[in-house]
Amino acid sequence: MRTAYREHLEAYASDLRVMSETVRAIMSNATTALLETSLDNAEEALSLADSLKEIRERCEHRSMELLALQNPVASELRQVITSIHIVEDFNRMGALAKHIANTARLRHPREVVPADLRDTVADVAKLVDEMAELIDDQLISPDADLALEVNRVDDQVDALHRFILSTVTANDWEESNRAAVDLALVGRFYERYADHCVNVASRIVFLVTGQSPEDYADQKTIQI
Amino acid sequence: MRTAYREHLEAYASDLRVMSETVRAIMSNATTALLETSLDNAEEALSLADSLKEIRERCEHRSMELLALQNPVASELRQVITSIHIVEDFNRMGALAKHIANTARLRHPREVVPADLRDTVADVAKLVDEMAELIDDQLISPDADLALEVNRVDDQVDALHRFILSTVTANDWEESNRAAVDLALVGRFYERYADHCVNVASRIVFLVTGQSPEDYADQKTIQI
Repeated sequence: MRTAYREHLEAYASDLRVMSETVRAIMSNATTALLETSLDNAEEALSLADSLKEIRERCEHRSMELLALQNPVASELRQVITSIHIVEDFNRMGALAKHIANTARLRHPREVVPADLRDTVADVAKLVDEMAELIDDQLISPDADLALEVNRVDDQVDALHRFILSTVTANDWEESNRAAVDLALVGRFYERYADHCVNVASRIVFLVTGQSPEDYADQKTIQI
Repeated sequence: MRTAYREHLEAYASDLRVMSETVRAIMSNATTALLETSLDNAEEALSLADSLKEIRERCEHRSMELLALQNPVASELRQVITSIHIVEDFNRMGALAKHIANTARLRHPREVVPADLRDTVADVAKLVDEMAELIDDQLISPDADLALEVNRVDDQVDALHRFILSTVTANDWEESNRAAVDLALVGRFYERYADHCVNVASRIVFLVTGQSPEDYADQKTIQI
């Protein structure tokens, strides 16, 4: 591959990793803000979210540069287009984590999560960070099988999300309707964050194998 | 512009318009399903959402083709990249409208929207369709000023969304916590749908003027 192009692409890849790590830091602070009613962590999440905007703009600029200046061939094109999509996913993940931090800040010093659901929300937070970590690993060395692992964790997130929704909409819910709404929205923010991890993983499977994750998984089953 | 490239681009533009109209049809059916507890409209929304998937895949394929085969120059590149982003926005808008249809179907034959909030939800639905129509016009003849109009309508959507949220989280809410959660989520789906209209409009302003909507609006103020 041409040296100049390679250098541009590496700078872009490095920005993607910064985005990925910033997103995880926003979510980690948002979760602490939520579960430990910490205003400091909420503020830290919001300030990190601001810095995400700059990296995103730099990435958008870089992708245009790569496409315009370097005349990429098909495989390089696929890589740049994949990155454009991943930047958008990271951007939304940052926004969703920010919503969680904002909910914690808005209700402070009151708890958003009642004692009964604390462990469930903590589990969801742990699982979505596991997914984000898998994605982060993918950015260093793309691997289609590891990407499929993201889907497996997502199923667990979906199950816990359904449990949260059914708890807050049940007839025997003893907290306020405000608490129910807050939790339903927070649950949705985590679930959407996980969905974006799945998107990123799918893009990476496609980049590595030229197949959708479903086709790739089917083919593996046939091989076994 | 080269004839072959122009033909490819026109086919792509035509697919984008089909996506835009399909998304509006999904949302229109979803709103009727919601406000008139119509199962037929809910089913129609879900079936239209399936067809959206195919158009999206065709669009993704077309954008790769345009970039790979035709060696586009800078302004053409900007157009293709803009379209890639718009396809993603339409895709999400379709998914959000589908969530509304699904909520109506899940609760059928019960009403999701209590009498007190019917007019508000109907107003939100009318406004977001107005935004989607403005976007649709943009696809035929891009115009930066018309795109800014989308932002104005979005402010009204945000105000109504805040009203819905404050109503369902208020102490004097008389319906169930399930109704509160359903409405909070449905409100959020409409609001996110509107946000995607704003995204599309911003992309079009940038394509036409080379500026962000904020910079373009500032510059217009200075000229006046």
